[in-house]
Amino acid sequence: MKKKQFEGIFPYLVSPLNSKSNDRKNVLERLVNHLIHAGIHGLTLFGSTGEFPYLNQKQKEEILETVIRINQNRIPIIAGVSHFSTSEAVYQAKKFEALGVDGILAAINVYFPINTEGIYRYFEAIACNVNCPVIIYHNPKFSNMDFSLDLIERLAEVPNIEYIKYASANTGKVFSIINRCNGKLKVFSATANIPLLILMLGGVGWMAGPACIIPKQSVQLFELAKQKKWDEAIELQKKLWEINSLFQKYGLAACIKAGLEIQGFPVGDPIPPQKTLTVSEREEVANALKSISW
Amino acid sequence: MKKKQFEGIFPYLVSPLNSKSNDRKNVLERLVNHLIHAGIHGLTLFGSTGEFPYLNQKQKEEILETVIRINQNRIPIIAGVSHFSTSEAVYQAKKFEALGVDGILAAINVYFPINTEGIYRYFEAIACNVNCPVIIYHNPKFSNMDFSLDLIERLAEVPNIEYIKYASANTGKVFSIINRCNGKLKVFSATANIPLLILMLGGVGWMAGPACIIPKQSVQLFELAKQKKWDEAIELQKKLWEINSLFQKYGLAACIKAGLEIQGFPVGDPIPPQKTLTVSEREEVANALKSISW
Amino acid sequence: MKKKQFEGIFPYLVSPLNSKSNDRKNVLERLVNHLIHAGIHGLTLFGSTGEFPYLNQKQKEEILETVIRINQNRIPIIAGVSHFSTSEAVYQAKKFEALGVDGILAAINVYFPINTEGIYRYFEAIACNVNCPVIIYHNPKFSNMDFSLDLIERLAEVPNIEYIKYASANTGKVFSIINRCNGKLKVFSATANIPLLILMLGGVGWMAGPACIIPKQSVQLFELAKQKKWDEAIELQKKLWEINSLFQKYGLAACIKAGLEIQGFPVGDPIPPQKTLTVSEREEVANALKSISW
Amino acid sequence: MKKKQFEGIFPYLVSPLNSKSNDRKNVLERLVNHLIHAGIHGLTLFGSTGEFPYLNQKQKEEILETVIRINQNRIPIIAGVSHFSTSEAVYQAKKFEALGVDGILAAINVYFPINTEGIYRYFEAIACNVNCPVIIYHNPKFSNMDFSLDLIERLAEVPNIEYIKYASANTGKVFSIINRCNGKLKVFSATANIPLLILMLGGVGWMAGPACIIPKQSVQLFELAKQKKWDEAIELQKKLWEINSLFQKYGLAACIKAGLEIQGFPVGDPIPPQKTLTVSEREEVANALKSISW
Repeated sequence: MKKKQFEGIFPYLVSPLNSKSNDRKNVLERLVNHLIHAGIHGLTLFGSTGEFPYLNQKQKEEILETVIRINQNRIPIIAGVSHFSTSEAVYQAKKFEALGVDGILAAINVYFPINTEGIYRYFEAIACNVNCPVIIYHNPKFSNMDFSLDLIERLAEVPNIEYIKYASANTGKVFSIINRCNGKLKVFSATANIPLLILMLGGVGWMAGPACIIPKQSVQLFELAKQKKWDEAIELQKKLWEINSLFQKYGLAACIKAGLEIQGFPVGDPIPPQKTLTVSEREEVANALKSISW
Repeated sequence: MKKKQFEGIFPYLVSPLNSKSNDRKNVLERLVNHLIHAGIHGLTLFGSTGEFPYLNQKQKEEILETVIRINQNRIPIIAGVSHFSTSEAVYQAKKFEALGVDGILAAINVYFPINTEGIYRYFEAIACNVNCPVIIYHNPKFSNMDFSLDLIERLAEVPNIEYIKYASANTGKVFSIINRCNGKLKVFSATANIPLLILMLGGVGWMAGPACIIPKQSVQLFELAKQKKWDEAIELQKKLWEINSLFQKYGLAACIKAGLEIQGFPVGDPIPPQKTLTVSEREEVANALKSISW
Repeated sequence: MKKKQFEGIFPYLVSPLNSKSNDRKNVLERLVNHLIHAGIHGLTLFGSTGEFPYLNQKQKEEILETVIRINQNRIPIIAGVSHFSTSEAVYQAKKFEALGVDGILAAINVYFPINTEGIYRYFEAIACNVNCPVIIYHNPKFSNMDFSLDLIERLAEVPNIEYIKYASANTGKVFSIINRCNGKLKVFSATANIPLLILMLGGVGWMAGPACIIPKQSVQLFELAKQKKWDEAIELQKKLWEINSLFQKYGLAACIKAGLEIQGFPVGDPIPPQKTLTVSEREEVANALKSISW
Repeated sequence: MKKKQFEGIFPYLVSPLNSKSNDRKNVLERLVNHLIHAGIHGLTLFGSTGEFPYLNQKQKEEILETVIRINQNRIPIIAGVSHFSTSEAVYQAKKFEALGVDGILAAINVYFPINTEGIYRYFEAIACNVNCPVIIYHNPKFSNMDFSLDLIERLAEVPNIEYIKYASANTGKVFSIINRCNGKLKVFSATANIPLLILMLGGVGWMAGPACIIPKQSVQLFELAKQKKWDEAIELQKKLWEINSLFQKYGLAACIKAGLEIQGFPVGDPIPPQKTLTVSEREEVANALKSISW
């Protein structure tokens, strides 16, 4: 079986766990179909927006099975894997692959400081235990640790490790990764990056939570970039960036879930102890969404 | 049933998961008996030294059941509970209480930033769902967040929350907690504190990993403090502090596990991706242990 | 007298204080002429590359007087002003204006934490005491403090404050500043930014140390951006970024000074206690420079 | 001439620069006499409480000359020296010695990161250029950098470097310094430490801003510690710690200056852009002072 190539807009799917609607699989079904109709190129489960640290394994498997069933192979499905322990992360990855994912997004949780060799071994263990492409996902802020270019280049040599998503606002670091690992590691833009700039510098797509609520606009941004219509693209990016900034203001999952509820998808509250948006915060999200709808 | 009072030396027990000896319950049995014979006043499972973030729930339950069976009610057993999600933490706490623990050490994992109200609710939910005493455990370094004195005082009012272990090298903060929550919250010294000083300021004991390898000396320090023999106590603390500093140098769990192997307890390596000590680092630990044995 | 407009490539000039050549004014003269002949659009003294914190007021005045004399009004000269105390910063700004600068680059040193109002008043005091344009210069890393968009917008309303240089690798923040302060505050790219991207997003130029050693290439990058030749520009930016990254590796002033010495300008060592480059580090800089010369 | 030994309570003197009273030398005279009558063992100028980063060299010299004149050799006078540049710091130290100080408190300002060798050379240069005792003063928080025990031990070998003040709340680090540099480096407690504990562990005194407003109580604490009356000492320390915590709440210099004004010494506002205390903050300081006066 040929591996799928990942390119374009891959929203991080929310995890509608606490939905009050009592029909959370129904919400998931409508949301996934809505996103696919909007033209997105893939879906990533259990990223930050998917609240991966707050879910247990059983909850993750239920959501994944539902999404795979709804998708019916229309677009690639990627699932996030992350733990403090190597063996737990490997277990998750194997389980998700057995359930039918097309790719694994691999992150590491850090408690005691880990040295470079430990990080390398952790990701290598995941990649060696699956047959699908692996996307390295690193967020320096959450783990209080940066990955060096040398480490990233070494990881790029590991079979199956084919992509990276470097969740940092430091665009220069992403540019350096693209330059250094050219051809060996494809780069996805993160929520904290300006996706258009990453596409200009050679990135292959945008993997981010906000794409859940602005799927059409995100796809259009990607199309404009592919066609090198830079002036139009910058104008669109400018509008989308304001939305993006707003979503980072009140907690990512809380904002995306509120935005989806406003759009008619009762996905429920963020998982406690995360805070639900107040009425006025929710209104701010609603107004921002109105300003860019078309 | 009357609740037990916690006071004195409570080593954080290691989690002998990867023991090469194939008889890890046997190691655990010998180690627990050894510590009790050395005079310790209680045992705490699933702290940092117990590598709690690296274990899954099934592994924790197995270790806890073994320890409770060996202990035969000789000393109080406390189990650590921690998660990103409130409901998962509550689940752990209820499960551990059902298995027979005498107290819950409650910590919070942080991914998205949580506000004060969210933190309060998290700990309140744990305390409301058990009948045993709860010890708040906070490590500002690991969660990139400090608890204010106002929050701590509010937590002290919650039924069952009776102790706090503030894992910070900032002795002044611990002193302020003692002064502010006098009578409502008893304070245990952490590994990063100088336990003798916390005892002088009004603390009730020391809850820390290094006590696993220097149990007799730790108990003696506590006794000297109780008898207000300060000069002798300072001399002993001086020696013990050197050991303590060494254990913080190479990763806490890695050092304690190496120290126990040197002392004849094959508890195995730290859970990957944590790094095992090198031969020369292990020698450094061995030499330090020799210098304080008696 | 009409105020000058600042646009384009403004190298941060090094401060050749410790030159072994005994003719440091001669070096400065040759360097300034060389940069002007390479086409740069302005010169900024006493930025990070100019080692402003390491100089005393007398040294700064000597360097400034020399540069103004050599320049003979060919390009705008900007001088950096920074202190912990408002009155000292105002003193510097007035003195530099009296000596003939065309603009003031205003930064703040932080010891005790300062609130938003204090920061606003500091910059307002500088701007009110000069008649030339003021460029706000903020480096969040060095002062352990970020400026909010609200503060920046408020500063943009102060007469004379016309530009900002936000020395952060966070391109998204710079984009937000451009969007929010559109028309009221023009933005210069910093060393840590990818200047081409800032120009694409609406920035007016690049103010950075590395432009001292790659002046022609920097000017060409700016010209390509002005002509919207994005594909060519990205190719050039890619090469220049590698140089830029290298310069950040060993301490900015140390690298730029070493690079200039290699290019025939004996500007001397960085001011102690900063470290001079080793022979092998210097070779790395030399090789990098060879790879982009034309 | 025999060098003086430093031991006991050394308040950091405020710098009454902005006094509205128009007779700031007069205030200084009254304050210095008041402190000496209260029994303090020495005075340190140009620490954090002395607002050293906000003063220029001329202002420092004026204050120092006044204090030396008033003191008439009754107690040792120490002056703080700090700069980004080695040569500027050496200049200050030589100048202050020429004016008659008994010791130099040497700190380093950090802009570009400095390696261990650079830090060593900086302090060595200061110590080699004076004949009086030098006290290393390091505040890890302000300079974003910790000094290793190896570096501190190496500094302890430099002639004239005889004391250290490690301004960190990390009491364990101070204990390690005392243990490692025993006999070669004497340790003063800082504002962030609990001075009584440092004295118990072997420290020689307390060098801190709050001692300006509670001089008698501070001296009494020192006397109780000398006499090993630990129980009484802890009771007193408890009260003083509350004051100390309050002073750290609103900015150290601002609080100490407000406290002195309340006590009848119109030393003026903190130097802008530092914020003056509000009426209600000032009241909080006044109430705290009332509660411990005797």
